[in-house]
Amino acid sequence: MPDVKHQKWWGWGYDGIPDFHYENKPGFAPFVLANIGLDLATAKVVRPPALSELNVPATKASVDDVAALAAIVGDAFALTDDEARIVHWAGRSVRDLIRTRAGNFSRVTDVVVYPGSEDEVQRVLALASERDFVVIPFGGGTSISGSLQAEDHETRVVVTVDLGRMNRLLDVDTHSGLARVQAGILGPDLEDALTARGLTMGHVPDSFTYSTLGGWVATRSSGMQSDKYGDIADIVKGLHLVRPSGVVTLRDLPSTSTGPSVREMIIGSEGRLGIITEVTIQVHKLPAKREVVAYMFPTWEAGLLAMHEISRSEAHPVFTRISDADETRFSLSTLKAPTTPLKKVASFGQERLWDYLRLRGWDTNAMCISYCCFEGSAKHNDREKDVVKAIVGRHGGIVLGGGPGAMYDQKKFDTPYIRDFLLDRNTVGDVSETAAPWSKLAEVHRKAKAAAHAALEQLGRKGFVMCHMSHSYHAGACLYFTFAFVADEGIGALSQYDAVKSAIQQSFMDSGATLSHHHGVGVEHRPWMEQDLSEEGVALMAGLFASADPGNRLNPDKVLPSPR
Amino acid sequence: MPDVKHQKWWGWGYDGIPDFHYENKPGFAPFVLANIGLDLATAKVVRPPALSELNVPATKASVDDVAALAAIVGDAFALTDDEARIVHWAGRSVRDLIRTRAGNFSRVTDVVVYPGSEDEVQRVLALASERDFVVIPFGGGTSISGSLQAEDHETRVVVTVDLGRMNRLLDVDTHSGLARVQAGILGPDLEDALTARGLTMGHVPDSFTYSTLGGWVATRSSGMQSDKYGDIADIVKGLHLVRPSGVVTLRDLPSTSTGPSVREMIIGSEGRLGIITEVTIQVHKLPAKREVVAYMFPTWEAGLLAMHEISRSEAHPVFTRISDADETRFSLSTLKAPTTPLKKVASFGQERLWDYLRLRGWDTNAMCISYCCFEGSAKHNDREKDVVKAIVGRHGGIVLGGGPGAMYDQKKFDTPYIRDFLLDRNTVGDVSETAAPWSKLAEVHRKAKAAAHAALEQLGRKGFVMCHMSHSYHAGACLYFTFAFVADEGIGALSQYDAVKSAIQQSFMDSGATLSHHHGVGVEHRPWMEQDLSEEGVALMAGLFASADPGNRLNPDKVLPSPR
Repeated sequence: MPDVKHQKWWGWGYDGIPDFHYENKPGFAPFVLANIGLDLATAKVVRPPALSELNVPATKASVDDVAALAAIVGDAFALTDDEARIVHWAGRSVRDLIRTRAGNFSRVTDVVVYPGSEDEVQRVLALASERDFVVIPFGGGTSISGSLQAEDHETRVVVTVDLGRMNRLLDVDTHSGLARVQAGILGPDLEDALTARGLTMGHVPDSFTYSTLGGWVATRSSGMQSDKYGDIADIVKGLHLVRPSGVVTLRDLPSTSTGPSVREMIIGSEGRLGIITEVTIQVHKLPAKREVVAYMFPTWEAGLLAMHEISRSEAHPVFTRISDADETRFSLSTLKAPTTPLKKVASFGQERLWDYLRLRGWDTNAMCISYCCFEGSAKHNDREKDVVKAIVGRHGGIVLGGGPGAMYDQKKFDTPYIRDFLLDRNTVGDVSETAAPWSKLAEVHRKAKAAAHAALEQLGRKGFVMCHMSHSYHAGACLYFTFAFVADEGIGALSQYDAVKSAIQQSFMDSGATLSHHHGVGVEHRPWMEQDLSEEGVALMAGLFASADPGNRLNPDKVLPSPR
Repeated sequence: MPDVKHQKWWGWGYDGIPDFHYENKPGFAPFVLANIGLDLATAKVVRPPALSELNVPATKASVDDVAALAAIVGDAFALTDDEARIVHWAGRSVRDLIRTRAGNFSRVTDVVVYPGSEDEVQRVLALASERDFVVIPFGGGTSISGSLQAEDHETRVVVTVDLGRMNRLLDVDTHSGLARVQAGILGPDLEDALTARGLTMGHVPDSFTYSTLGGWVATRSSGMQSDKYGDIADIVKGLHLVRPSGVVTLRDLPSTSTGPSVREMIIGSEGRLGIITEVTIQVHKLPAKREVVAYMFPTWEAGLLAMHEISRSEAHPVFTRISDADETRFSLSTLKAPTTPLKKVASFGQERLWDYLRLRGWDTNAMCISYCCFEGSAKHNDREKDVVKAIVGRHGGIVLGGGPGAMYDQKKFDTPYIRDFLLDRNTVGDVSETAAPWSKLAEVHRKAKAAAHAALEQLGRKGFVMCHMSHSYHAGACLYFTFAFVADEGIGALSQYDAVKSAIQQSFMDSGATLSHHHGVGVEHRPWMEQDLSEEGVALMAGLFASADPGNRLNPDKVLPSPR
């Protein structure tokens, strides 16, 4: 494959990244045993097969099709080999991994091309119109919503356009705080290039390490620091969208009133309108100081009220986050055993702290850990920390301090590796996230957990469901649920997964929340679109797609089903 | 007419609001004489004619059409009389007023209906589909972009739907900071209802007194306090859009990733997708304290740099605004003569201040007045004022204080009355506003003024052009230009107006700015849509309109021309 970073085809992240290990985390195995009934000491470990063991469907592209594509992008950048096609055949959802590891391929992409310029993208799309190819844009491949795969019944040639070679920071306007960037750039590469100029985008989704700017825009992403830096829709100030007929060029503007927002039609369009090749993003000076502080609350309800009060206060943290009691217990179970005398003292101190809290009447199984991040001058941060500390205190919480805060900050991208570790042990772990107004959050939380547990009970599985609140807005916040249970081996797990995931999603709808706050729609969340946007709302969107792509060639069936 | 507030048909505002007077403003007449050559002492005053003097085209609606509409909304709420039709035939742009006052009617609406409920709106739209009526939604009628008028060549029956009866605050969720409101509510009525609950929306466009929530959403409005409270697109969290086939219902959400944003398709749609009947807006607790502070800068360039630095600082004023030298001189010319001993002292003091600044080397003809607004606790405001004061000082500016600030705050809605006063004297005054990245603002300003003056010179007119910067964003800000010149009498003024306005608009395009920051598109700004959004961007939007309204009945030709 060309000199473009790819995730391994059987899991999250690059090949060679160390797997998750639990041996140095004494609380982990007992936690997993107690909560999902998985005994790590005896569990069968099913490692992914070798690619050669799998039966990869042959490409449907003719030699002439491939030659025509190669004539545009160059021979080295039009691939039909199994590895290239399997790396690109799906995203990295648990569904995708279960199927991939089982060799349960349906419609694998036929050709992977790596255009080197906007002009090449344009010519690929023009060729696709001419030859009736289906075109799927591909950034880092981290989608967990099923946005990267053709439908099973697709009979046309499917071309995946990997933007990985279009990965340059083109231009920076420091005075305006704007950077013009090619869409295929990966999160770390973008931040490195900006850091070198004393700048940051501040957009840090969980997938940051492996996802691209274009992917963030196409899926309407939001990063964990959105309280300060905004959702991707707030960050994008201009863009290029390549269409078969030409390029949509939106000038770089802080705001505009040019009718319905074409920018906001393209954000979240998941390839249905064309391929995003260039984005102008809002960038900020690197803060003088960054601090993450941890807090502990006696209950979830108290913590939620505190998060709400912070959002109404004169402090504006970069993020506020609180885990529910289950997620808090899980987090504590992943702490490493202390290896140095200092760490041993800290660990001992922590146990004594819990004892003390119990003496004060806390149920330490109900307590909830929270993190707030502060950026700015030391004086600014100190002031904000004081405001937050007072609020935390008013809601019965305590300050744990910067130590656990810094540890959270280091580990923030690690959950998907645990997901894959569990999958190696036939344990399905996945996420469902939503947003709702403040006044509905407690109910959304209660109902989603109840719905998940009811579905697990129906399956006769012992399951675990945890949640955190993050991404504060004036009007509400995001709730992010993670669930896990020991599933059947192989693709038998899929229907079990569907039962739990669907139950959670439907509970979001029933309690007035949305189908996804920042994971997009793909095909995974498509069934809830009419409930979320109303039939008439979906009809407006379907009309946009139909008028923009009457031939249904642009990543068809994502977000909404394409007409046949 | 029903018990709904209407502006007078010949000008801005309600009948009976006192006209603008200059006799108590000693600087005004000399300023006008010097800058546009209009001698107020001798100028012919052309008062608007009586409605009975004008030849209003007859309605094209049949008796049966009117009866069918009346069967839905009630007899008292389906009107075809001249006054109702002329009040609703246009917005309140200078073009609209010149034509109205000259009796230069083209396609006057045929029937005005006042539905009392969403269901009635729905039935009006269904009837419109059945009978092929054109439907134009109408809020407060303050549009200055030509969004409320059928095209001259329209042969179908035109029905204007005045939302004035749908004007209730329906529900408030104080914890979430959300209020559900009917779209026809006027700015002051909405704020009064919120104030009674200790809340505010904080959305204050120049048209606030006479414009409606639905109008703000339909035209993608932004208020002068958007730095804190957001553009209307930030404020709207849920809405109802009635379409001929049903209602788009978007649930109340802080954020969501449900594909391309249907919410953002409806915002700015100016009636092309249906009629907005209900909006859930973000509301805030009334601030403990509100203060507007005035500053003076030696030059425009210094002031712009200071505004930029404030936008990058740890202070977050509710608004920052700076007038260029011309607008500053104009503002000073509208000061009232002091009538009390205290005011005389203040006025004397101000003259001495200018003397002092001249001694310090200022050219007081180049100085620029600025205002910043602070809201919050006294401590918070004091801290922010300190931050701003230091920045102002670094850029050579001085603090004028809260007195002139409070005066600005009182007069902020008055400019349109001056516009009408001048129009009575054959003087055309109008505005053109835009937004651009910080690094382009100085150039946009220079080029727009040069373009306007070149156009005026071409016309052989002595004209005046002034500007202020407002609506700060991280990436840029809005520039708001006002121009005036003595024009030909009657509708002869229109082509002169067009020449100047077009020159300014085109200069926006040429310097990378947008065609409008918050006045919308209508038909007035339509000619620049392709330059702003690119041909392909316009094609996407046109596709949305065509798919949503294949019969071209929903306020056709606004934003983009409708296909024939």
